[in-house]
This record gives sequence, C-alpha cells and structure tokens, in this order.
Amino acid sequence: MKYCVGVDLGGTNIKTAIVDEAGIIVAEESRPTKLPRPSEEIGADIVESIRAALASAHLDVGDISGVGVGSPGVVDSKAGVVVYSNNLAMKDFALGAVIRGALGLPVVMGNDANVAALGEVFAGSAKGASSAVIITLGTGVGGGIVLNKQIWTGYGEAAGELGHMVVVRGGVRCTCGREGCLESYASATGLIRMTREAIQQYPDSLMRRTALADVDGRTAFNAMREGDTAAANVIEDYLNYLACGLANIVNALQPEVISLGGGIAKEGDALLLPLREKVYAEIFGGKGKKFTRIVLCTLGYKAGLIGAAVLAMQHAQK
Amino acid sequence: MKYCVGVDLGGTNIKTAIVDEAGIIVAEESRPTKLPRPSEEIGADIVESIRAALASAHLDVGDISGVGVGSPGVVDSKAGVVVYSNNLAMKDFALGAVIRGALGLPVVMGNDANVAALGEVFAGSAKGASSAVIITLGTGVGGGIVLNKQIWTGYGEAAGELGHMVVVRGGVRCTCGREGCLESYASATGLIRMTREAIQQYPDSLMRRTALADVDGRTAFNAMREGDTAAANVIEDYLNYLACGLANIVNALQPEVISLGGGIAKEGDALLLPLREKVYAEIFGGKGKKFTRIVLCTLGYKAGLIGAAVLAMQHAQK
Repeated sequence: MKYCVGVDLGGTNIKTAIVDEAGIIVAEESRPTKLPRPSEEIGADIVESIRAALASAHLDVGDISGVGVGSPGVVDSKAGVVVYSNNLAMKDFALGAVIRGALGLPVVMGNDANVAALGEVFAGSAKGASSAVIITLGTGVGGGIVLNKQIWTGYGEAAGELGHMVVVRGGVRCTCGREGCLESYASATGLIRMTREAIQQYPDSLMRRTALADVDGRTAFNAMREGDTAAANVIEDYLNYLACGLANIVNALQPEVISLGGGIAKEGDALLLPLREKVYAEIFGGKGKKFTRIVLCTLGYKAGLIGAAVLAMQHAQK
Repeated sequence: MKYCVGVDLGGTNIKTAIVDEAGIIVAEESRPTKLPRPSEEIGADIVESIRAALASAHLDVGDISGVGVGSPGVVDSKAGVVVYSNNLAMKDFALGAVIRGALGLPVVMGNDANVAALGEVFAGSAKGASSAVIITLGTGVGGGIVLNKQIWTGYGEAAGELGHMVVVRGGVRCTCGREGCLESYASATGLIRMTREAIQQYPDSLMRRTALADVDGRTAFNAMREGDTAAANVIEDYLNYLACGLANIVNALQPEVISLGGGIAKEGDALLLPLREKVYAEIFGGKGKKFTRIVLCTLGYKAGLIGAAVLAMQHAQK
C-alpha cells in the first residue's frame, strides 16, 4: 500500500501526517513554526517533521508516493512555491524544491483553505460529493471550492476568496479594502462587533454579564439560549448576513454540499437549522429536486492534513 | 468530416445551425416559435428546422454526430428534458426524445445562457481560455460559467445565476424575490430606473431631451458623451454596481476571462475601460501575474448556436 504525506504549514504550528489511500491518518507530528525565522529554517523543519512522522509510522520514503503542503497565502501549486504569505513572511519561497531535494519525493502545494476543503470532500462532511464549498467562520471568513473532486484554484490560484464577496455595498470596511464584504458581517469578528453594538444599545441585556472586553463569538449565542431578546436579534441579523452570502454561492455554483467550519460552526444546530431555512428561502427557483445540502465540517484541523495528502495522491495519479 | 447541430430554442424564434468541428456555422435556419402553442408542436418544428438546415448544407443525418439544444429555464441536460420554462410554458417536456425519435441522433440540452457561454469560449471572446464567465447585461443579468472548457451546471443544473447575487442587502427588490441582486442594478432595467430617477432630480439634464417614456439603456450613455454631468454620474453609479458584482466573481472563481454581452455591452469602450479599472482595484490581493481578462462578447446570437453544437460534440466524445 502506498501512502502520501500531508503537511499543514501554519503560522503557529507545522503539522504533518502520513495518510493512506482511504484518507486515514496513520501517523501525525506537530512542531511549532517559531515565527519569525528564515524560510529556509522552516523548510528544513518540515523535512525533519516528515522524517519523524515516517519513523513513527514505521515507514520509509519508498512507501510514499508524494507530499502535499497546505500553506496560507498565494501558492504556485505545480512549481511548489509559496508566492506570498504575509502570515509566514514568505515571498517566492521554493518549499517544494527543498522537500524534493531532501527526500526525492514529488511535492504539490495548495492554499490552506482550499486543501482543507479537499479533505472535507474526501473524508469529512462532504464525503462522496462531487462538488462542495467549505466556508470557515473564524476571525475572517475563509473559502475553499472543490469541483469535480478537484480544488478550483482559478486562473492565477486566487479563487475561493468567498469572504471577500460584497453583500452590503458601502457597508462596513473589510481588511481587504472593500466595503461590505461577507467577512465583515459573517466572521466571528463581525459577530463580536454586532454583539458589542447591541450591548451599548440594550444595557439590560444578558449579554452585559460578560464584560465588554471579553465579548467573543459565543456571547450572543449563549445569551440567546437563556432567552435574551437583544441577543436573539443579534443572532438573527448575523444569520441573515451569512444566509445572504450562502444563497449567493448557491445561485452562482450550486455545489452539492456547503460545509461550515471555524469557531462559529461550533454552535451546531443553533447556527445550522435556522440558516438552512433562510438560505433555501432565498435561492433562485427554489430548492428543486437536487439541492445544495448545508452541513457542518467534521474533520477540524485534520481536514488540512488529509486534504494535503489527497492533493498529493491526485497529483501522483496524473 | 462530422458536424453537429446547434439549436437555440427561444421565446421568439427557433434558430438552428449546422456547425463543423472548428466551430464554424455552415448553414443556418430560423423560424418563429409562435407562442403560445403546445410543446409537441414546437418539438415537431425543431425537427423540421433541423431537416431544413441539413438540406441547405447539402448534408444528411449520417453526417451529424449529435444535436445540442439551448433552452431557457431549467433543463435536465442528459435526459434531454425541459424541466421548467416559464418563457416557453414548458414543464417536463422530453424534447430530446422527440428529436432522437425523429432523427435517430443523440441529443444533449443546456440552459441557453450556459450554452452561449460555451460558444464564446470555443469560438468567440474567450477563445482559447480554459475558464470563462459570461455576463449578459440585458433586461436581466444572465450568467454562464465555463470551467475546464465545460459548462458548470451545478448539482441540480441551477448554477450560473450570477445576476441573482445580492450586492446591496436590503436594496431594490429583484424579480426573483431577493432584495439588492446584481440584476436590480446592472441590468438595462436597473440602468433605466437610475436614469429616470436622475431626470426627475435634474430636470435640466440632457437626458431630458428624450421623453421619460422613451428612456432606454442608451439614454444616459448618450447624454454622458455630450458632456452631461448628471448622466455621467448615472453611468458612474451603474459601473460601480457592475464592478462590484464582477469583483465578487473574480474573488470567488478567478476565471481566465469575463465576457460581457447583451444590449449594454454595445456601449463598448465607454463601458469596458472604466469598468476594468474599477474591478482590478477591488479584487483581493490585487491583479497578480495571471489575472482575469475582462472583454466584450463577440458572437452575438451565434454564441448560442455554436455553443449548443459544441455541447453536442463534447457529449459525442464522452
């Protein structure tokens, strides 16, 4: 049996996994990225991490068909280059060549959000689906698009930036420079802003019990569950913005599955059930016979590891 | 040499063409759709139209590998069924079976906007591109998505409704029921509304010379060219809305080409040049090395005929 290596290169940790053909992780390794430091040192540590994971799986390089790496920022997938990552302070870094040089294995790269989407399609929430869009509701709103079981990277590997879809023209300024991006409303950051505004406006709200400084993405959800009306209104608004963005995605791409991940997705049914109703009410031509399922991601951080390995498998088969 | 038949089934005319492997039309036929009448009669007329086109090309059924039909509404492409078309008053009509039964040829169907997009990719404005999005700026805003040289139909053949992407949450009500769709602002209908509003507000505008009842999608463009400030502001607003929608499409899909068609696209450079600047200023991460080209459609009504034939060719090769 052949295996692939999946690497999730993050700003905090370098995670590495050995993944079998069924998408199951047979060994896993993690070490701190230790930023800031030179890209070459990070590359050398990734090689060490792969060797360590191989040793713990009692496998050697000959058992591996390829290495996949998920990285933040813009990558050149085939050349194996991190073109630009603000997060990693990398620019035109040929990470693929470093790994290939050390281990003699083919390397393919992907944007981390896209790679995680591929993982969810092969082994997680969208397993069996031919197409899926993964939306991550965290500090920002991330997106990954998988079509015909392949990552859709776009012409210059910049596709999938679904958080930077304007839904409120002239609305709240986004970190990307546009006004009214989905990210400005449907991210945890957006929810926290809306929660703070509601606390200012309704000082008697249960949300108040949490000091303003400690407001997080759970504050309004928790207060809503205790019957607080102001909190319920915040969540209603939040869900309306998110549903608007998801309905846009369905109208444009109609993927088989939309999976929601990130911190806010931990709210589970409190998020999912009303959201489904809102999205289905907004899509063009109604739900139809074959409609987009909306679900929660199931793999957590493992999506990126499995997805990176699957990317390497797909590359090896070409 | 083998040929394919392309049929463009419209509310006004049934157009039929014989198309060669290079995507060139060798014969063409058109007859009125004569709505309202039973779907069976329309089906019989399509068969007659194909026979007439074959005769005028001095070809017979044996020279043809397949028939492609573009239809408004929702189709089941492989089954060859018009699932629902309000425009044609058709519901679950097995047009493919009618054509197959009469001519013994394989039939594949597509939504008319998607099929026209395929035509532009194979023989028009996006020739040579692997991926393209075609946006039609007419009474509504239509969309067609071609990825890896194939129509992206979505899971239930409802993808590509890019006009029904909300860009102004809570904005002008769209015919689809949502508020603030791109179609409400970037269609000719939207431009006419904005032109009328500006005439009310600025009675001295040159736009006034045209009676309010006769305002169309050219009124503001024409007055702008004569130096009218109010008209220039209308066009500026119009372009900003359209650029917002196109930047959303680039951020999501980053196609190699976006082609603009429909009545408003006849404005040419007055539309295209400022629009490009606005879109490139708004896309995530800037233009990059490989960026989406924005161009005008070149095939006009022939896009639908050629695209339908190309769809049949792709089907025959599978």
